[in-house]
Amino acid sequence: MQLAILFGGASYEHEISIVSAITVMEKLPRFELSFVFCDQDHTFYLIDRSNMKAKYFASGAYKKAPVLTLTAGGFLQKRRLGSTEHKWPVLNLIHGADGEDGTMASLLSFFDIAFIGPRTDASVLSYDKRMTKWFAQGRGINTVAYEELNCTGMRKTKTPMPCIVKPSRLGSSIGVSVVKSESELDYALDVAFEFDDSVIVEPFIAGVREYNLAGYRGTEGIVYSIVEEPQKQEFLDFDKKYLDFSRSSEVGAAQIDAALETKLKLAFADIYEGLFEGALIRCDFFVIDGEVYLNEINPIPGSMANYLFADFEGALTDLLGNLPRVRRARVEYQYIHSINAAKGK
Amino acid sequence: MQLAILFGGASYEHEISIVSAITVMEKLPRFELSFVFCDQDHTFYLIDRSNMKAKYFASGAYKKAPVLTLTAGGFLQKRRLGSTEHKWPVLNLIHGADGEDGTMASLLSFFDIAFIGPRTDASVLSYDKRMTKWFAQGRGINTVAYEELNCTGMRKTKTPMPCIVKPSRLGSSIGVSVVKSESELDYALDVAFEFDDSVIVEPFIAGVREYNLAGYRGTEGIVYSIVEEPQKQEFLDFDKKYLDFSRSSEVGAAQIDAALETKLKLAFADIYEGLFEGALIRCDFFVIDGEVYLNEINPIPGSMANYLFADFEGALTDLLGNLPRVRRARVEYQYIHSINAAKGK
Repeated sequence: MQLAILFGGASYEHEISIVSAITVMEKLPRFELSFVFCDQDHTFYLIDRSNMKAKYFASGAYKKAPVLTLTAGGFLQKRRLGSTEHKWPVLNLIHGADGEDGTMASLLSFFDIAFIGPRTDASVLSYDKRMTKWFAQGRGINTVAYEELNCTGMRKTKTPMPCIVKPSRLGSSIGVSVVKSESELDYALDVAFEFDDSVIVEPFIAGVREYNLAGYRGTEGIVYSIVEEPQKQEFLDFDKKYLDFSRSSEVGAAQIDAALETKLKLAFADIYEGLFEGALIRCDFFVIDGEVYLNEINPIPGSMANYLFADFEGALTDLLGNLPRVRRARVEYQYIHSINAAKGK
Repeated sequence: MQLAILFGGASYEHEISIVSAITVMEKLPRFELSFVFCDQDHTFYLIDRSNMKAKYFASGAYKKAPVLTLTAGGFLQKRRLGSTEHKWPVLNLIHGADGEDGTMASLLSFFDIAFIGPRTDASVLSYDKRMTKWFAQGRGINTVAYEELNCTGMRKTKTPMPCIVKPSRLGSSIGVSVVKSESELDYALDVAFEFDDSVIVEPFIAGVREYNLAGYRGTEGIVYSIVEEPQKQEFLDFDKKYLDFSRSSEVGAAQIDAALETKLKLAFADIYEGLFEGALIRCDFFVIDGEVYLNEINPIPGSMANYLFADFEGALTDLLGNLPRVRRARVEYQYIHSINAAKGK
């Protein structure tokens, strides 16, 4: 099966996208893979498999690789004489900006390239933490209460301490702080406003159980991964997350009863249906007093959450066979024709 | 002032985009305009001003115009020898799909082209009527209650008659019906499901007052248009809307008291702030028992709602000078470097 892994991007998560791509590559031995790197200047490069090493990108050596441009149906590689059109289906593995904010989904859709990943609308709703809350409320899914602060507004919160301060539009714990007392708020806001003009403040609920569940829509409906209880820490800082994105060994399922597992799967389905088709997503849930709360949606999870699936290659093959069809309007110019006819033109 | 009007698109509103472009062209006599047509196959063409006539597009004559491709910072026009890079700021005037669903915003942002129009996130929230409801609720703005029906689900509604049936993701009244009794529901759903797999059903509130208000963020903050009370009809069908998109003569302001005008402007600001910067939008409101309800957001209103502004050229100039800056992440590869250093590489 052919597949191009698209990674990089002008994003604070550029480096973890490289790590993700290398990890996924190793988990897909039976695929015929190609590698498309989007650098921070938005140039696409075709990367040879032998160069899929972090240092190749960090050193700038990638700039000698062939440049690709987008064209109807694929990527175009110019040759000395003529050019080659590559018509691979694409796995969008750009984390954060460009990949998860709807940009890549729009580009690939516009140029009619089949891809695994969230569509533009699903990207926007999961990328911005405020919009994820609005969406969850709209679909009747619990989320933790929040407050929004703006970089030009008051530096005060009504949220009781301890609280969590997060930039509204970043993933991978970048710019996130746990604030234990009022005196720490200012610094946490400085950090968060480095990355976004808007931040959200949530109560930090001690002792909450966290569960991660991944899934996608395949031939037989939604296919769920095992439920994982992630390692317990206040939260993962960026260095830890960086290593986390290279995870490749299958983890054990969380020890939870069947009723809770069903609740988590129902919440997942309520989020996924009619919006995330074409993507393999990971939802991170809290369980508070037996109730399931959506914490966040990862529409392009680190290393595609491969470690949650017993047969990851089978999962991607199934997903590739079930990408959403696009309804594109056909234009017949009936109004212009009829108006011109009425005018006698 | 240079400006390229981008119009067309693979959209049910393709033809009204052509009408809009011709109307806006005539309203900007002091601008140095260029015209970029996106056809339904997603090819861009550079259109000569003399060819800005509906028939030129309907007849397919446009296919002889020079083709443009997107490149970093602008549009590229190939010549027999070499090529020309056009670095115009763009007015996104593609209505409906491609223009208002976030696709064009993503493309223009990715290729670093300055443009008037909603950004990707603002587009998604205003294009899908369900998401507009979630967004309004999240920001504490009243909207009319609704129910969602899916093409694979039950064809029943709890909404009392009469009700309005609308495709979730189209503008310009396409596929919209007023349903007066249960017996008419099935046909209205057939019509709406022609255009989208999801439809929303809202109560049809007779005698409601409607007010339209446009605006944008300029140098001095939000600039509001006059408030218009649109012509009263059950709703505008597509033929009427088509003509409506060519409106160019200034209308009179609605006869409303200062308190209501203030309420409408406050609701507009609550919607616009922190999301629609860079766009001139028109919000359509209902007033029920003295309370303002958001009906819909037009992030690229027909002919840019030029008829609501006393100095439309001045408005676009002011907006062009206040387009939002993009915060693009710079990548230093510090994590890869530090990990390689730790490994002694």
